[in-house]
Amino acid sequence: MISEKMKPMVENNSVIRVMFEEGKRLSALYGAENVYDFSLGNPNVPAPDAVKESILEVLDQEESTFVHGYMSNAGYEDVREAVAQSLNRRFGTDFGYQNILMTVGAASGLNVILKTILDPGDEVMVFAPFFLEYGNYVRNYDGKLVVVSPNTSDFQPNLQEFEEKITAKTRAVIINSPNNPTGVVYSSQTLHALANILREKEKALGREILLISDEPYRELAYDGVEVPYVTKYYGNSVVCYSYSKSLSLPGERIGYLVIPSQLKDSGDVTVAAAIANRVLGSVNAPSLMQRVIKRCIEKDVSVNLEAYDKNRNLLYQGLQECGFTCIKPEGAFYLFVKSPVEDEKEFCAKAQTHNLLLVPGSSFACPGYVRIAYCVSYGQIERSLPAFRALAQEYGLKSKGKPGLGK
Amino acid sequence: MISEKMKPMVENNSVIRVMFEEGKRLSALYGAENVYDFSLGNPNVPAPDAVKESILEVLDQEESTFVHGYMSNAGYEDVREAVAQSLNRRFGTDFGYQNILMTVGAASGLNVILKTILDPGDEVMVFAPFFLEYGNYVRNYDGKLVVVSPNTSDFQPNLQEFEEKITAKTRAVIINSPNNPTGVVYSSQTLHALANILREKEKALGREILLISDEPYRELAYDGVEVPYVTKYYGNSVVCYSYSKSLSLPGERIGYLVIPSQLKDSGDVTVAAAIANRVLGSVNAPSLMQRVIKRCIEKDVSVNLEAYDKNRNLLYQGLQECGFTCIKPEGAFYLFVKSPVEDEKEFCAKAQTHNLLLVPGSSFACPGYVRIAYCVSYGQIERSLPAFRALAQEYGLKSKGKPGLGK
Repeated sequence: MISEKMKPMVENNSVIRVMFEEGKRLSALYGAENVYDFSLGNPNVPAPDAVKESILEVLDQEESTFVHGYMSNAGYEDVREAVAQSLNRRFGTDFGYQNILMTVGAASGLNVILKTILDPGDEVMVFAPFFLEYGNYVRNYDGKLVVVSPNTSDFQPNLQEFEEKITAKTRAVIINSPNNPTGVVYSSQTLHALANILREKEKALGREILLISDEPYRELAYDGVEVPYVTKYYGNSVVCYSYSKSLSLPGERIGYLVIPSQLKDSGDVTVAAAIANRVLGSVNAPSLMQRVIKRCIEKDVSVNLEAYDKNRNLLYQGLQECGFTCIKPEGAFYLFVKSPVEDEKEFCAKAQTHNLLLVPGSSFACPGYVRIAYCVSYGQIERSLPAFRALAQEYGLKSKGKPGLGK
Repeated sequence: MISEKMKPMVENNSVIRVMFEEGKRLSALYGAENVYDFSLGNPNVPAPDAVKESILEVLDQEESTFVHGYMSNAGYEDVREAVAQSLNRRFGTDFGYQNILMTVGAASGLNVILKTILDPGDEVMVFAPFFLEYGNYVRNYDGKLVVVSPNTSDFQPNLQEFEEKITAKTRAVIINSPNNPTGVVYSSQTLHALANILREKEKALGREILLISDEPYRELAYDGVEVPYVTKYYGNSVVCYSYSKSLSLPGERIGYLVIPSQLKDSGDVTVAAAIANRVLGSVNAPSLMQRVIKRCIEKDVSVNLEAYDKNRNLLYQGLQECGFTCIKPEGAFYLFVKSPVEDEKEFCAKAQTHNLLLVPGSSFACPGYVRIAYCVSYGQIERSLPAFRALAQEYGLKSKGKPGLGK
């Protein structure tokens, strides 16, 4: 009954399910508070109070048939305008409602734009480490994923290899900053260089190449680090955004696409993307949540960054003290830690014996590293540190922490 | 920038937009209350009060990180179980939570199941008249749509032609009852005959053929007419459901797939469908609305059928009295009226001069008819009747109404 394209995914899925079942088994055995699950990017911080307030206001003040009804496939015009103006205020852009398409989260936004532009055989480039799901999205439209190998010195993209791998089949590049799984923010310098390469290649190949920026972590940036807005660097850009992380609404599936006017054939791309949104079955982004987003924008609601920042500092310092190696993340809620042994899956298995659930870097096309998602409670991080210490000792790691700072 | 597959859809879209703009133009010219827009299937009946009550209860009683968070790609288990038990109570089925997959409405459910099963070139059969979007869904996965021509005597499916058109490439059949655009309910006799043909063909061809039942109008059935549950007639069935019409929540994008255990490879199909839900970008059905659906089921909330029934009777009788020909619909909220001239687009254009906006049957692969969506206010139907009368007189139609019943 199952299509040839889906069969390998079904086979592969059972591996993930085994991991999930293992977490449940450990929790049953040792108690949930003694299992340190760092595997999921599910925000532990509750949605801001303004979300609930806004839901109540919408239900009280707006008509039921309007709030729960169909609207344009691109979303309510007033919501799109509010999103555009919010971007303009924050990033000095010049968008109007016609540049915004409300989507069922960023995953759906990525599917919408890929369906809009990809012909079979078109190549889409990504920089390792990357969210492996991009490959599935690209294959949905018979595109071919081309992976640029990781630059493990600072996890900025490897632009030399990128330039070399662009071909006459290249149609798009997906970037993700702040990055899952490294927490790295692509710098202004990086984006300038990336845009220059793309512009030169476009001219040389006589073909547009779309820069797709997947930005669910945009607001999760620490120490005042700026996350540059890609449309200001390169005209043929599309931004995929989600409120999953910034408003802790991952289950609600609400986000948007930005399709700037400078984009080649922008008007047609906008029409095509709205159609793709429809025919892929989303039809439109969930209506009540669209209305809520507008009010949250008006209230200038922002993510509870402090909670994640506290987690980041505690975990980063704790891991340093244990002797683990990783760069300090500037954004998102992940630490990407070097495995003390080459086979990081072996390391993950060893971690599991200490009730630590980590994700191997090969799940992000970057073996030799593991991802630790710190969107958990502060208490879980505190309780997990002795387990990390015991794990480090098994590998004979030496503390890198400053004396006196450790507990 | 636009893919070859999307280009014709973009070109075609402008035609629909012209119609939409025409409606806006007429409203500006004559006042919205004097334009009788019967073109859209957007419920005019507000969501039942229980929806708002349930939203408030969920927000008050359940944890924010749970209500708005990620869950299994198939949905919350307790919600799926509530859906299963509700079906079992009402239709004598035997489903458990594992047979239910929560989806972003029925359109997404159809995409999910088609992605799960279709290989390129596989044929999917539909009975005209049908919702043309099915063709787009099938082409998303490089399937081929095979259309069985309409049986205009009673708009039950043309089973003889159906049987003849099944080939070794046939993978699925989509049915839709109560039907958009005819309002016809497929009878138990029809489903028995359909199932028998499918079983025989499966045996003869050595190949499973999936019956996909698209049922957003299930609860919209009048005069106590029973809408038979397809899984009781044929094991290789999947049901696509949406709360768009029954709870007036079309914008919220909430529905489910039923994947019965009798289905061949049911377990694998369930896993594959959850993956398809994920990789198509939905990830999961909107979380708050899932929680709300569970409570609405517990409260035994049902659609405001009376409002639609009143509309149906007023409009059907009014059209009869004008001399138009149509069968009385048993379900949904559409009347499918025979055009007094062969070219129903010409008829629609003439109707528009009376400020009546109708949809040509060729938009449902059934030229010679027009669809009138009566999910509008009772007042709009009342106000529109003189316009229908004037339109009928232009074609010299004679009243079929009983004397004394007309106004």
